[in-house]
Parts: sequence; C-alpha cells; structure tokens
Amino acid sequence: MHADRPAVTVIGLGSMGSALATVLMERGHPTTVWNRSAHKARSLADRGALLATSPEEAIAASPLTITCVLDHEALHALLDPVAGALAGKVLVNLTSGSPEQAHEAEAWARSHAFDYLDGAIMTTPPGVGSAETMFLYSGSHAAFEAHRPTLASLGDPLHLGTDPGLASLYDAALLGLMWSTMTGWLHGTALVGAEKTRATDFTPVAIRWLTAVTGFLTTYAPQVDAGRYPGDDATVDVQIAAVGHLIHAAAARGIDNALPELLKSAMERARAAGHGSDSYASVIEILRNPADHG
Amino acid sequence: MHADRPAVTVIGLGSMGSALATVLMERGHPTTVWNRSAHKARSLADRGALLATSPEEAIAASPLTITCVLDHEALHALLDPVAGALAGKVLVNLTSGSPEQAHEAEAWARSHAFDYLDGAIMTTPPGVGSAETMFLYSGSHAAFEAHRPTLASLGDPLHLGTDPGLASLYDAALLGLMWSTMTGWLHGTALVGAEKTRATDFTPVAIRWLTAVTGFLTTYAPQVDAGRYPGDDATVDVQIAAVGHLIHAAAARGIDNALPELLKSAMERARAAGHGSDSYASVIEILRNPADHG
Ligand SMILES: NC(=O)c1ccc[n+]([C@@H]2O[C@H](COP(=O)([O-])OP(=O)(O)OC[C@H]3O[C@@H](n4cnc5c(N)ncnc54)[C@H](OP(=O)(O)O)[C@@H]3O)[C@@H](O)[C@H]2O)c1
Ligand SMILES: NC(=O)c1ccc[n+]([C@@H]2O[C@H](COP(=O)([O-])OP(=O)(O)OC[C@H]3O[C@@H](n4cnc5c(N)ncnc54)[C@H](OP(=O)(O)O)[C@@H]3O)[C@@H](O)[C@H]2O)c1
Repeated sequence: MHADRPAVTVIGLGSMGSALATVLMERGHPTTVWNRSAHKARSLADRGALLATSPEEAIAASPLTITCVLDHEALHALLDPVAGALAGKVLVNLTSGSPEQAHEAEAWARSHAFDYLDGAIMTTPPGVGSAETMFLYSGSHAAFEAHRPTLASLGDPLHLGTDPGLASLYDAALLGLMWSTMTGWLHGTALVGAEKTRATDFTPVAIRWLTAVTGFLTTYAPQVDAGRYPGDDATVDVQIAAVGHLIHAAAARGIDNALPELLKSAMERARAAGHGSDSYASVIEILRNPADHG
Repeated sequence: MHADRPAVTVIGLGSMGSALATVLMERGHPTTVWNRSAHKARSLADRGALLATSPEEAIAASPLTITCVLDHEALHALLDPVAGALAGKVLVNLTSGSPEQAHEAEAWARSHAFDYLDGAIMTTPPGVGSAETMFLYSGSHAAFEAHRPTLASLGDPLHLGTDPGLASLYDAALLGLMWSTMTGWLHGTALVGAEKTRATDFTPVAIRWLTAVTGFLTTYAPQVDAGRYPGDDATVDVQIAAVGHLIHAAAARGIDNALPELLKSAMERARAAGHGSDSYASVIEILRNPADHG
C-alpha cells in the first residue's frame, strides 16, 4: 500500500464495482469496500481492501466514495438513510442511469451538503484500469479536479460539463452508436457469410473501413453544427441508389433487411425534405424532427 | 512520364474515372483515356494523358484497361461492340454493380478470351491514390498478380478471391456498415445536441468509442464463425435493459426512435431464441434466419 495515494471507498461490488476496487488497490489507493451481500467483499479483503461493516462506516473512511450498484433505485435505497455522512465529501456515482436521475441525485447531494459527480464507464470490467478506456463525468467541476488523479487510476477521465446529466446522455448516445455499428457489422457479416466468407476474414476489412468512416464523421460534424451539408463527397441521392444494391443482395440471400430498409427510408425522407444533393449528414434533420417528415 | 511504368487505359471519366486517370498519370503510368462526352477528357490531355478517339483505340493502347462508368448497363453498351479488342488483355472493372452482374461480366470476358477482375473502390474521388484506401478485387488471380503494381498506384489492392462477385458483395456489406454507423452517430449527435452539445464536441468522443467497438467486433468475429456466443463481457439481456434508457432519453427529447426500436427488437428476438445470456454476436442468428424469428 502506497500511503501517498488518496483513500477511496467503493460501495457496490458486483462485477463492475469489484473491478473498480481491484484496480484502485493495485494502484496503491487505500481502498475501503462495502457490498450488500458481504461475501463479494471477501476476495477483495484477502487482497488488502479494508472491509467496512456498514455503508456509513465505508463513507467515513475516505474523502471520496465511488458507488456502482444496479440502478438509481438501489443507490437511493442504500444511501438515503446515511446521506448525512457524506456532508463535506465527494460522491462519484458510476451507476448507470438517465440524465433525469443524475439531476435528481445532484439536488439530493446539494440538500445534504456534499459534492456530486455522475459518471459513465465506457468499457466492460476487464477494460477498467486501461488508459485507453474512457470514463465520462459530469457535474461538480471542483470535485472532478480534486479527485482527478484517483479517477485517472480507473481509465481516462473526461469531464463533459457541469450539467450532471451529460455523462449518462453521452452514455446512451454512445451505446446507440455501438449497437448500430455492431448490427451493421453483423448484417454485413451475414451477407458475405452467405457466400462462405468467414467473419474472421471479413472483420479486419470492416475494421479498416470503419477508420475511413470515422473520417467521414469528422467531415460531417462541422456540417451538423453549421446546419449546412454540402454533398461534395457523396450525396444522399447517390447513397439511395447504392442502398438498393445492398437490399437486393441481402434479399437474394435470405437475410433480414429491416435495418437497410430503415436506413433507406431515412435517406428517402431526407431527399423528400430537399436534401437529395446534400451529404448524408443532412439525415440528422429527419431524426431531429420526425413529426415533420413522417 | 516514366517509361518503366506499365501503360494503362481508363474508360469512363466521370468524377471517379478522372481521379483514377489523374493518379495513374501522376505515378508515371502512360495513361490513355476515353469518355463518351469528349470534353471531360480535355483537362486530362492537357496534363499528359493520351486521348483515344474510340473505345477500341483506347483498349489497343494498353495491356490493361480500367473501366469506371455509371453501371453495368453502360459498361456493356460501351464495350460489347468492341469486346474482341480485349482478347488476350485484362479488364479491371471498377464500375459498381451486383455480384450477379460481376458473374455475368466474367462469363462475357471468358467468351471473348480476356481476363476479368471486378473491383470496388472504398473511397470518394479525393481518396484515390492514398495507401490507406482499400480497393477490393475479385476474379482472375493471375490478372491481379500481373497488374498489382499498377493497381497499387490507386490505393491498397486487396484480392478477396476468385469468385468475381466478392468485391461487390463486400462493397454492399461495407456500405451497409457505413450507413448503420453514420446513422447511429447522427442519432447520438441529435440526442446530445438536444442538450446543447455540439457535434464537433461529441464526435471525437464517438470516434474514440468506435475504436473500443472495433475491439468488440474482433472478439465477436470468431464467435460468429464458431456459432457460439459466450456472453462473458456483456449479455443480450444487459443490452436490452440499456437500450431502454436510450429510447427513453431520445423520446423525451423528441428524437426519432425508429433505429433504436429496431435494434431493441433484434435483441428481443435474440433473447426469445434463447440468446439472453449470450453476447451481442448472437443477433446474427436472427438476421440470417428472419423467417424463424419474425
Ligand atoms: N458490467 C459492465 O460491463 C458495465 C459497464 C458499464 C456500466 N455498468 C454499470 O455498473 C453498474 C453495476 O453493474 P455490474 O455489472 O457490476 O452489475 P452486477 O454485477 O449485477 O452488480 C450489481 C450490484 O448492485 C448491488 N445492488 C443491487 N440492488 C441493490 C440494492 N437494492 N441495494 C444495495 N445494493 C444493490 C448488488 O449487490 P448484491 O451483490 O448484494 O446483489 C451488486 O453490488 C450498473 O449500473 C451497470 O449498468 C456495468
Ligand atoms: N464517386 C464516388 O465517390 C464513387 C465511389 C465508389 C464507386 N463509385 C462508382 O464509380 C462509378 C462511376 O462513378 P462516378 O462518380 O465517376 O459517376 P459520374 O461522375 O456520374 O460519371 C459517370 C460516367 O459514366 C459514363 N456513362 C454513363 N452512362 C454511359 C453510357 N450509357 N455509355 C457510356 N458512358 C456512360 C459517363 O459518361 P459521360 O461523361 O459521357 O456522361 C461518365 O464517364 C459508379 O459505378 C460509381 O458507383 C463512385
């Protein structure tokens, strides 16, 4: 144990909370732990964690408490009775939730005179501790700055803003991007798989292609901010023609076409709204205002 | 002009064909060009291209002809009358089409005793000439090997197999991945945009996250090949819970939810098929056999 690293308390030792506590211990933070089901704390205690016998005792042990339980209901069930113990301290909550729940938690923190930082963990437990892993935070900037070195033990900490809802809003947006990408990849994998191409052969090409796609996102982001979508590189009209090829090829191979049909419909609504010779970024107008483009 | 670089003919000088001819000239290939509308050849001729007065003359000028016209109909309208001139030579066709059209073109090439390579260009015109840009080829392996150095002038040439349909099948699959990713990104951008986050602030985070997502694809590809989907990292059940948060957050902000609803439905069908505690890769079973999981 390195006495120079700040003490931390971790409450909630499910698969994610255990990973957090393990990494904090490994980085030399005196780490106090508590979990509703005490047996999950045992292996951490064997490796040097300090076992608290109550949430209150756990909170008292450190200036910073990190919570990672199932949901906000569990968080409040656990901490409402002992919120007074947090006064003057910092709570970093890594339990997933909605922006609205983060706002409620911040108000609750204010009423008990402690600082609140909401967070979202952009990895699965094995990715905790890697400098590549993003941990998104929003809420108290002072709390973030004060505890940045500790948070940096868990991954790369990004403070998104003082609105406490931002971390969970980004979390939802990024997970949506993940599911879209993974489903598009699975659809493509099914398509080439129908012609005996293995997923392990297609995937390196798909990953290289995604690097090119991130270049398109970088081009399109300022277009979205400006609300103007010059179609210099490839227009919505051109994409509509090409998506027809995909739908045809997939249908001929008996593959579900709901995803490409939906993408085509979004493109067609963009065209109907006058974006035929604009870039694909113009599709955001349709997503933002669905009622106008039914 | 470097006399040691092989001569090439480019037929079709639209925005893509002009980019191909320009890069070939820049790399020192004696480049003969022809286009239906002659005026598009003029600026290339000013920069050193050799102007052919007919497709036949263009083909005669080089052992390798590259075609890049609107579609396969245009290709055949143009070359059927002069296919005899290709005998003993190589045609690399970079016109977009379906796998079926590539098969027909190969049979047509065989009947006229020339070698056929079908190709797909994974970039827009400004990306031609970059070593990062993938050019996908399928069909004659001998033709690919013989002309690899010339093809390498245009980008990184990948030969996918002797089945001539593979390049356009990959093309469709990769474009599908692109639209899925771009639409997921636009949806996420609309979501955070509803809370005044700029696209240019969200996008670097989204791009970093996509790097993590490519890690998931690398994990899932061998699962797809094996037909077994251990949910060690994150299960379909867990994703279904999380997608609910996304749908709720987007609905509260008036954003179109067709895409996340579709993704949720795919996950729910995977769960109904017994994949609740499997990884997300199991969703491919639903895409492959839509009739079984309606
Ligand atoms: N796992 C991931 O990959 C991942 C990634 C990003 C974010 N997250 C988020 O991290 C949080 C925890 O996830 P996890 O994977 O660690 O889940 P988990 O393994 O199921 O652990 C859930 C934890 O919550 C506790 N808990 C549940 N209900 C409770 C209650 N009413 N009172 C007190 N404690 C309660 C559990 O205590 P018991 O042990 O007593 O049941 C356990 O410590 C979730 O919000 C999840 O969305 C997880
Ligand atoms: N642009 C891209 O970003 C991109 C990316 C990947 C693949 N591609 C593919 O590349 C091919 C060409 O695209 P492009 O962007 O260059 O299109 P484009 O600028 O519209 O050019 C079309 C070309 O096809 C010719 N053409 C059309 N119909 C013809 C006919 N019946 N007979 C003879 N020639 C005919 C045109 O000749 P005229 O000049 O006489 O009209 C012109 O040379 C397409 O298959 C496209 O899918 C394009």
